[in-house]
Amino acid sequence: ERFEQAFVVVRQQLLDAFAAQGVPNDAQTWYKRNIDYNVPGGKLNRGLSVVDSVETMKGRPLTDGEFLQAAVLGWAVEFLQAFFLVLDDLMDKSITRRGQPCYYRVPGVGTISVNDATMLESAIYQLLKLHFRNETYYVDLIELFHDTTFQTSTGQLLDLITAPEDSVDLSKISLEKFQLIALHKTAYYSFYLPVALAMHMCQIPAAYPSSSRAETVHPYALARSILLPIGEYFQVQDDFLDFAGSPEKIGKVGTDIIDNKCSWCINMALGAASPAQRAILDTNYGRRDAEMEARVKTVFEEVGLREKYRVYEEKVYAEIMALIESVPDDEDVVLKREVFTNFVDKIYKRQK
Amino acid sequence: ERFEQAFVVVRQQLLDAFAAQGVPNDAQTWYKRNIDYNVPGGKLNRGLSVVDSVETMKGRPLTDGEFLQAAVLGWAVEFLQAFFLVLDDLMDKSITRRGQPCYYRVPGVGTISVNDATMLESAIYQLLKLHFRNETYYVDLIELFHDTTFQTSTGQLLDLITAPEDSVDLSKISLEKFQLIALHKTAYYSFYLPVALAMHMCQIPAAYPSSSRAETVHPYALARSILLPIGEYFQVQDDFLDFAGSPEKIGKVGTDIIDNKCSWCINMALGAASPAQRAILDTNYGRRDAEMEARVKTVFEEVGLREKYRVYEEKVYAEIMALIESVPDDEDVVLKREVFTNFVDKIYKRQK
Ligand SMILES: [Mg+2]
Ligand SMILES: [Mg+2]
Ligand SMILES: [Mg+2]
Ligand SMILES: [Mg+2]
Ligand SMILES: [Mg+2]
Ligand SMILES: [Mg+2]
Repeated sequence: ERFEQAFVVVRQQLLDAFAAQGVPNDAQTWYKRNIDYNVPGGKLNRGLSVVDSVETMKGRPLTDGEFLQAAVLGWAVEFLQAFFLVLDDLMDKSITRRGQPCYYRVPGVGTISVNDATMLESAIYQLLKLHFRNETYYVDLIELFHDTTFQTSTGQLLDLITAPEDSVDLSKISLEKFQLIALHKTAYYSFYLPVALAMHMCQIPAAYPSSSRAETVHPYALARSILLPIGEYFQVQDDFLDFAGSPEKIGKVGTDIIDNKCSWCINMALGAASPAQRAILDTNYGRRDAEMEARVKTVFEEVGLREKYRVYEEKVYAEIMALIESVPDDEDVVLKREVFTNFVDKIYKRQK
Repeated sequence: ERFEQAFVVVRQQLLDAFAAQGVPNDAQTWYKRNIDYNVPGGKLNRGLSVVDSVETMKGRPLTDGEFLQAAVLGWAVEFLQAFFLVLDDLMDKSITRRGQPCYYRVPGVGTISVNDATMLESAIYQLLKLHFRNETYYVDLIELFHDTTFQTSTGQLLDLITAPEDSVDLSKISLEKFQLIALHKTAYYSFYLPVALAMHMCQIPAAYPSSSRAETVHPYALARSILLPIGEYFQVQDDFLDFAGSPEKIGKVGTDIIDNKCSWCINMALGAASPAQRAILDTNYGRRDAEMEARVKTVFEEVGLREKYRVYEEKVYAEIMALIESVPDDEDVVLKREVFTNFVDKIYKRQK
């Protein structure tokens, strides 16, 4: 469809810019594979949500020019995600992603993937320069990507050092840490970033007086206050699907248990485990061994993790809907509630 | 000295910004070690050359405010270098750097180093935002770092795929490839970047009419036309020292031969080798084996690589000096010849 047609444009611009450096064919082929292997094959939720948000806020269909700009921002988010996923799979020693071997596992790639990841990151700023250089909000877009990159790296660091491979210590795990990790490694880039990009494209200012109330509206902070909780909910889903999802549906084999992750699942299990179950978790969690992983999964089932998840999802859904209700919906408001409900509708009860 | 004092300021700003995200102590300690292990311990030539260039172009001592800004740009270059070196050592499987184990070899670090590298890269843009956000040339600085990062990644890619670990094929090696690699992976970030940053800080425009000749001056292109050849010369030195330098002096053990690199040395050896010597190179180059490496080194000695290097260095030195002579030195010229001679003086006949 239209969003994927924009990828054809964007991809060609990047390949042309790369070739313009005078590099040989084998390097051009490599760069092309890097992009094609890592960028387009996902669900594209993040990228599409930029376009959807711009459309919702403008309240009318986009012109071709507007659509391309919104789609470029969407693809820039997908490049950022690709950059992080390539590195994440290497660090997590993951096996599959989107139904294919993780990129670092492609023969001949290996650790070259870390340089390829930086090239995917560079593509973001090349695209912004090509499509937004003359816009007043060009610097805002760049800074937003910089800030989000730093927040996500911070989340990855927390995720990695809370779960060192070589020393499992379940007392280091807590729900507060889970939340801090989810906020940084997922919520900012997956939820706040797409909406904030769309807001900049719609030239929403940092603050303005409310038309209906005697107060100043800070629309970016308002958006954040709703999107970050949605991001935490999304991470809970991601962790639950890592345990309970089917590899065919989610496109990857879960590794959180053997990776010793501070996931929502282990937090719930620790909170409900009997001393005997706790002992099993202590001995078997975070080990690179399939039998030990299976023992942990048995405890997860025994403590009723599936039911806990069902209850959590109903509760958090209601909470988020209440947050969205608190957004002013005066006629002249640009940041419409629909921007947020779009997200929730997409992820509520997702199976992949 | 003064430049290192600026590091204390810069480092504290980064640590404060990191802590402001509400992250736990162990993460703060990790981030601090990341910075301290990877950023300050080098020769600082690149960073210092920003400050030197600004001083030379202004033609007077810098005020405290100017010095700090120039030093921040210098440290930003050092952060960029640290970002690339952390990834480079992992990809090259290097052992030591600056007289200590490569960062990825520090116990508990491993592939987490790739996320740490991205945090060093993020620091660049945090520093630019803190110190240059209100300058008219803020966007120019950001774009220059973006462009340079992409060029350097491109050079790393060329370096890596020209020298795949698993299939040695010396017919893929050529002096043109060496030059393309050197230009991208070294010359832009080590030589052009520091001077171009200094030029932006001195508000040198992209083009202006010459005062003495009937032509338009393009000062950034002019700087590039001199600094990129200096960068190639520097890479030749780097490759030669990888073979002939002493690990105590250069702070690392050379790995170019076992890494199958398209280095200046192997190019020179291939150009001068007898059929028998060529056969030795074909069988022994690019193998992870100390005896094979020693055989290659013997051929390097037999073909007279040391003498070839001596001759090369004299010739390229003269060529670069001639290039510098061609820079206009009217009284009102800001881009003084001294900006370039400073660089050449620092690297001519270097042993480390
Ligand atoms: Mg991970
Ligand atoms: Mg992962
Ligand atoms: Mg997961
Ligand atoms: Mg190296
Ligand atoms: Mg290398
Ligand atoms: Mg070298």
